[in-house]
Amino acid sequence: MRLDVVTIFPEYLEPLDVSLVGKARARGQLNVHVHDLRAWTYDRHNTVDDTPYGGGPGMVMKTGPWGDALDSVLADGYETGSREPVLIVPTPSGRPFTQELAVELSERPWLIFTPARYEGIDRRVVDEYAARMPVYEVSIGDYVLAGGEAAVLVVTEAVARLLPGVLGNAESHQDDSFAPGAMANLLEGPVYTKPPEWRGRGIPDVLLSGHHGKIARWRRDEALKRTTRNRPDLIESCDPKAFDKKDREMLSILGWAPDPEGVPHGRFWRRTDGVEE
Amino acid sequence: MRLDVVTIFPEYLEPLDVSLVGKARARGQLNVHVHDLRAWTYDRHNTVDDTPYGGGPGMVMKTGPWGDALDSVLADGYETGSREPVLIVPTPSGRPFTQELAVELSERPWLIFTPARYEGIDRRVVDEYAARMPVYEVSIGDYVLAGGEAAVLVVTEAVARLLPGVLGNAESHQDDSFAPGAMANLLEGPVYTKPPEWRGRGIPDVLLSGHHGKIARWRRDEALKRTTRNRPDLIESCDPKAFDKKDREMLSILGWAPDPEGVPHGRFWRRTDGVEE
Repeated sequence: MRLDVVTIFPEYLEPLDVSLVGKARARGQLNVHVHDLRAWTYDRHNTVDDTPYGGGPGMVMKTGPWGDALDSVLADGYETGSREPVLIVPTPSGRPFTQELAVELSERPWLIFTPARYEGIDRRVVDEYAARMPVYEVSIGDYVLAGGEAAVLVVTEAVARLLPGVLGNAESHQDDSFAPGAMANLLEGPVYTKPPEWRGRGIPDVLLSGHHGKIARWRRDEALKRTTRNRPDLIESCDPKAFDKKDREMLSILGWAPDPEGVPHGRFWRRTDGVEE
Repeated sequence: MRLDVVTIFPEYLEPLDVSLVGKARARGQLNVHVHDLRAWTYDRHNTVDDTPYGGGPGMVMKTGPWGDALDSVLADGYETGSREPVLIVPTPSGRPFTQELAVELSERPWLIFTPARYEGIDRRVVDEYAARMPVYEVSIGDYVLAGGEAAVLVVTEAVARLLPGVLGNAESHQDDSFAPGAMANLLEGPVYTKPPEWRGRGIPDVLLSGHHGKIARWRRDEALKRTTRNRPDLIESCDPKAFDKKDREMLSILGWAPDPEGVPHGRFWRRTDGVEE
């Protein structure tokens, strides 16, 4: 996989040398190019931004440097055999970046990122490249960053760990929160390792029982507890078929019941105690 | 504000030297300490993880190094006058990190981050420190990272840009997506800057009209379009009082109507075209 990042803060991308992403690069699985947007400015101040049309606060990143930078990146990639690029534009106005999208992107051969600063990039840049390749405008969450670079690190890491052979034995994604499978839409509960006692704190007896069925049930119940507490939105939209009889008992204890009225809207569960957090 | 980060990848935090966060550090507004967790290991392999109790894939980070590291960080901070620490634990099982939480954290004097790797940290570490200080277990989004370090960069940047004096004139948060105010719960629409034509692409005439009312209305309509397309969840939960007559007209054109049935559940709007994406 080839990754290109165009940014006015190339040094922000140094974590791409570290950890899983760094190792995948060292093994040749990832071919990463970080470009300084200001290399495509031609005035003495290396200007990349200007005031917004229509007025208002903040500055907007100019078409010229972005267009020239992307043309250059595309030419270089095609020359060296890369194909089927997609453009990833981190922006708080984008659609949510999810694990499903990470999986989709991990199957693409070439990702080009355009992290912006200030109020964002002149819209015409996205319009121009959307005519030539798939463009993903993505938001990594409901908060505002100073720029898109941190989002690039997030997306890159989420994608890179899904590449074949990148995760070692010490890391595993089969039980991940948000992974498809048995724990779909449930958060993982607490984990413990040796020693059995630390600062007067023990571990749940069931984990020492050796009884695989009871351990699986305990983990499932803990996942349900944590998900109802931290992410009621995930429970609401859980397909009832994902829950067995014991799941339903635990959900009932936790104050959740099927919501027949919500089903047409994809909301299968509701709180029974009337509490809306 | 004092920030401590304990991690097995200290070099991942190098972006904290860059951009707004770096400048805030240079001005003395932020006092950042990055610590290598392995400094608190005492075996020749600097072991920080072990197999999970109860079995299963992956490794769990051990209580010992984390407890010793946090005790040491706390002692150092208190000695040098820091007070009222809060612990921030990035985890996909946490509650969502939001702009509201960024504002809350920006008012605290001392943030301590514990980015984990593998399957996470032995639960007893959180239990131990939760007895002494506020603990926030936060998730930055519905995707899985290789570790918590990228989340620390995200949270730190979202918080730091809210500190007084950190944002310059070129950056502004009064019109941010997710900021309180007129655009609450709406995503920002497209932005444009000079030149008026680029590669055959112009800009919307209204932005050159000089008519502030029409420009504001156009921006509002574009925000409604983008939000209904990318974040129907945000529209659903918008209080009807947030919309004026023209907003309602645009929402109607976009296929949205009030949802009286959903009001008890905090869902004020629904699609009228029956399409659920």
